[in-house]
Amino acid sequence: MTNKIDPIRQTDDDARDLGRSLLLEARFAALGVTHPSTGLPHVTRIAFKAEMSGALTTLVSDLALHSRALRQNAACSLLVGDVPDKGDPLAFPRMTVAAEARFVTREDGGYADLREAWLASHPKSALYVDFADFHFVRFKISGADLNGGFGKAYTLAAKDLFPE
Amino acid sequence: MTNKIDPIRQTDDDARDLGRSLLLEARFAALGVTHPSTGLPHVTRIAFKAEMSGALTTLVSDLALHSRALRQNAACSLLVGDVPDKGDPLAFPRMTVAAEARFVTREDGGYADLREAWLASHPKSALYVDFADFHFVRFKISGADLNGGFGKAYTLAAKDLFPE
Repeated sequence: MTNKIDPIRQTDDDARDLGRSLLLEARFAALGVTHPSTGLPHVTRIAFKAEMSGALTTLVSDLALHSRALRQNAACSLLVGDVPDKGDPLAFPRMTVAAEARFVTREDGGYADLREAWLASHPKSALYVDFADFHFVRFKISGADLNGGFGKAYTLAAKDLFPE
Repeated sequence: MTNKIDPIRQTDDDARDLGRSLLLEARFAALGVTHPSTGLPHVTRIAFKAEMSGALTTLVSDLALHSRALRQNAACSLLVGDVPDKGDPLAFPRMTVAAEARFVTREDGGYADLREAWLASHPKSALYVDFADFHFVRFKISGADLNGGFGKAYTLAAKDLFPE
């Protein structure tokens, strides 16, 4: 016998605030892409930064498979939400964000500001941010699945997380 | 100008040992699946356990989207490797495993042993392991991409991780 109860709760401000906090606090994320050769799911770790404006950013190398994947197919998934050292990992909040990736070029307007803001939150990447194979990527949110712990599942729209 | 150097190093015993350790130490993983409705990448957090035998296990609910996804398309990706509280998240080892998921039924041989071994490593899941909508899933490794930190990338075969 399978439980047929709809596990998704109605979105409220607590859910919106939790989802936004998970993004703003994340220094890294798991990135899901479509493998460029096999077409199968492929998950990697990326550095990550979200700003109050709703801008979501990573910095990736062309040498990494996920960069090749995103240039071929921009649709991707981000998992954010840290796991504490103790306790059931599934009892802690996390969120899956569906997104579209867009590569930023050094000629794009605002590049210097983007670079500066990134280095403020990820200072260690100063070692490689200016390497020719490294590029910033912006993510545009299309929707999100928030799991606030057992029995606390919500489906969020982009505007629930960052009102325009 | 893009760096054309092949970033993949030759597999050695250190790489095999590191990959195996990342699996054996993981209590959870990021799971990448193909979304059953949209066909797009979708990443979620799952509880996880690897054994020295090479058996990889999770426990999932039918209410979760990843379960529906895996029943429709068993090809998936697992990201393992914890991130310490401090330092550049990309400086720490992690591994992406390509796998095929197979659902275990309560009628399968060895179910009691599987359940017992799981509860030994994930005791908190005793709260829900016997709920009708929860099922164990075994993962069969088809290959792995190990990233031991900057400049330390390896491509591993299943037998590199768990010799038969």
